[in-house]
Order: sequence, then structure tokens, then C-alpha cells
Amino acid sequence: MGVILHVCTTCRAGQPLVDGEPCAGARMGAAIGALAVPEGVTIKPVECLSACKFGPTIALSGPDRWSYLYGPVTEDDAALILDYAAAFAATPDGIVPWRERPSLFRKNVIARLPAPETTT
Amino acid sequence: MGVILHVCTTCRAGQPLVDGEPCAGARMGAAIGALAVPEGVTIKPVECLSACKFGPTIALSGPDRWSYLYGPVTEDDAALILDYAAAFAATPDGIVPWRERPSLFRKNVIARLPAPETTT
Repeated sequence: MGVILHVCTTCRAGQPLVDGEPCAGARMGAAIGALAVPEGVTIKPVECLSACKFGPTIALSGPDRWSYLYGPVTEDDAALILDYAAAFAATPDGIVPWRERPSLFRKNVIARLPAPETTT
Repeated sequence: MGVILHVCTTCRAGQPLVDGEPCAGARMGAAIGALAVPEGVTIKPVECLSACKFGPTIALSGPDRWSYLYGPVTEDDAALILDYAAAFAATPDGIVPWRERPSLFRKNVIARLPAPETTT
């Protein structure tokens, strides 16, 4: 089963919007969109992950696994983000081993959330 | 369908651990556990939501809805947290209307995540 890379494409990263210029999140989304998508990963733009203080922000989620939110990340990290999404997809539980996490994803984790479960 | 209130019970909130004294997350978990659980809400302790900088932390999640992470919250907020979990459970999509959100949950949102979806 695949995973989702959520990309917050509306993040201003604390900067004012300039007419005709894409915001930081839009630039990141465009950079990610220009690269090849790893197998098992689906990219989904999202308008606001409510982590504006830490943006630009991405999130990784999928069935039967932890979800993770990361930020700040930028368009310069696009290739690293996609590689990491592939590593996330390859885990059984969403937990990429610490030694395999690039520094960006060790330092810039905003939060994580346990696997979704249905309760009655 | 019910929702889950995840309570990070290992959060030190930046304080050193003191032998024989519960950490901030454990105190919050105990305070929440001492109150009546609203219908449709299941409380789940979790060891670390990786949001230690903003802790103590809780998260709300459930099927077909946005998930939200909040912090810092403390044992003094236990009743408010349970009321808010009930409001979250009563929504169709996890988005509690802004006017119904107590100040704590307006100001102390760490991040949110779209509804889990399975991709192929």
C-alpha cells in the first residue's frame, strides 16, 4: 500500500505575499512536482497544515503507520524530501530507522501521530 | 464512529525528571484519566508525539477527518481537553468551528493532518 506526501502549498513562511510571486510553499510544491515521484508515493497538495510557525511544511502518512510532520523544508530540499518519502514508504510502520534519517528529518520534525485506528 | 484522544504521557516539557515524581505528561494523563470520558471518545496514552518542544502534547484523530496536535497543554486543562475532544467527535470532518474553539485550542495548535486515505 502506498503513502501520501502532503505538501502545504499555501505556506508564506512568515513572509508577506508579493503580487505575482509564488509563496514559499508553492515554490516547494513546484520543485517537488518537477521531480520523478518514487514508487508507492502519492503527492497531495494541501492548503495549510496549521503549522505556519514552522513552515514550509510537509507531512507523510499512510495506512497502518505513524504519520510525521516536518518543517521548515524548502524547494532546495525537494529531492531529499522525495527520497525520504520513499524510505518512509518502505517501512512497515512509518518509522524510518534513525541512522537512515538525513539531518533535515532528525532536526525538523514538528510532530508525529500514531497509526489511524477506528474505534467504536 | 469514535475518535481517539492521544495523550503523550512521557513528556517532560523541558524539565529534568525527578525520581519518584511523575513528568508533566504523566500528570496530564492522570488528570484526564480521573474525569469521565465523553461518549464517542477513546483515550490512548502514547509515548512521545515527537513534539517535545511544544509539550505536553495531545492529539485528536479519527476516521474520515482531519487530525490535530495541540501543545502545550497541562493537567489544569484536563476538563477543557475532554470537552474539546467531544466537540471534535461531533464534527463530520474534524474541523471544530472557529467560534466554538476555546482560546487554548486556537493558540496552541501545533499542526494538523488531512484525513488518512489509502493509496494504491
